[in-house]
Amino acid sequence: MRISELSRHAGVSVPTIKYYIREGLLPPGAKAAPNQAQYADEHLQRLKLIRVLREVGGLRVDAIKTVLAALEQRPGLEVVGMVHSALSPPWSTRFSAGSEEWNAAADEVYAALTSWGWEMYRETPTFRYVVDAYLAAKSAWPPEWPPFSFTGLRPYAAAAQMIAKSEIGGTSATQLQTVPAADLMRRLVLSTVLIEPILLALRRLAQQDQALKMWRRGEEQRPADP
Amino acid sequence: MRISELSRHAGVSVPTIKYYIREGLLPPGAKAAPNQAQYADEHLQRLKLIRVLREVGGLRVDAIKTVLAALEQRPGLEVVGMVHSALSPPWSTRFSAGSEEWNAAADEVYAALTSWGWEMYRETPTFRYVVDAYLAAKSAWPPEWPPFSFTGLRPYAAAAQMIAKSEIGGTSATQLQTVPAADLMRRLVLSTVLIEPILLALRRLAQQDQALKMWRRGEEQRPADP
Repeated sequence: MRISELSRHAGVSVPTIKYYIREGLLPPGAKAAPNQAQYADEHLQRLKLIRVLREVGGLRVDAIKTVLAALEQRPGLEVVGMVHSALSPPWSTRFSAGSEEWNAAADEVYAALTSWGWEMYRETPTFRYVVDAYLAAKSAWPPEWPPFSFTGLRPYAAAAQMIAKSEIGGTSATQLQTVPAADLMRRLVLSTVLIEPILLALRRLAQQDQALKMWRRGEEQRPADP
Repeated sequence: MRISELSRHAGVSVPTIKYYIREGLLPPGAKAAPNQAQYADEHLQRLKLIRVLREVGGLRVDAIKTVLAALEQRPGLEVVGMVHSALSPPWSTRFSAGSEEWNAAADEVYAALTSWGWEMYRETPTFRYVVDAYLAAKSAWPPEWPPFSFTGLRPYAAAAQMIAKSEIGGTSATQLQTVPAADLMRRLVLSTVLIEPILLALRRLAQQDQALKMWRRGEEQRPADP
């Protein structure tokens, strides 16, 4: 297809497509005539993915590059971690990985999760991401509030495990081997970018649900006016 | 305390404190001498909160202003929604609230959640946020994949409800009335900013846990070499 058709099908303007080609996000089309290039279906699929990463994920061009590069690789825990890191803007904590405080927190996280039956590798970016998030929260926790510890996060861990079971639990390794690697990675990226906002939105709405139920309980318990 | 002490206690540089005062995020200190101002404990608490919103939440100055303004108000579903909107950068969808497609999605979301026993108000920003997130995912879903519907999101909704129950379920409306309103809003803001990254991180690590368990199941089922 021509660039104008590619633009219409993907919902991305021609100047933006040209910008992505210059930035190396999208391979150039095949030269069909001196001033005309032809684009294939792979261009369209890749362009749609870039659009989701930009518009829904809010990713910058360099993060999109990392994600697209990961899609070309054989899936593995390191590549999955690379994708996850690119998808979440790292927040700054006062603690760097490997420092004494960081290692103490990592021990605490690992011990708690292991005692809850989790299997994981400490060396993956995904594990480090949990420790970073935990340390950021712990260091910002108001000192006058009840102390913040990882074991107190058990309800979140249980909810996360419930979700992962529903996502992966039904799949067998043999089934997975029949899915092309590139497709598997694309699923991982889309399920992270598209599902995470829904999960957070639902958690907030669930708070509304519980608050409404709580207020009603309060009203029911209130003695009737004399 | 002096500005230098405020800076040391909060871990925020003096020029940054002066910038926050110019931007109206922090009230100026009380004039103690022509060239010296005194800051109270409220300044320190507010400054620490601003720091968390910037460093952990990644919020811009105008979003921080919205959150701080909400903290001054009496808590209610609209104010909670205002805080939630400020805390999540809105992603762009092709569908605007109130359009035909948006209303159809809102009906679908409302019907599913109601059938699962949720109570909610359709008019709150929190409900609209769920519809936005759902529509963003639905519109970006690859057409060749199994169709995407809200009822398929039930495991996420169940997990979100489990979390909200553990957060709010034990509290009674009467207990809540003894907590000062400003403190309640501060808890809401911090629990959103600090806990959401942990929840997402745990979900990713739970995927690793399930993947490792799946691969091991695959190995156990594999017949031994002859």
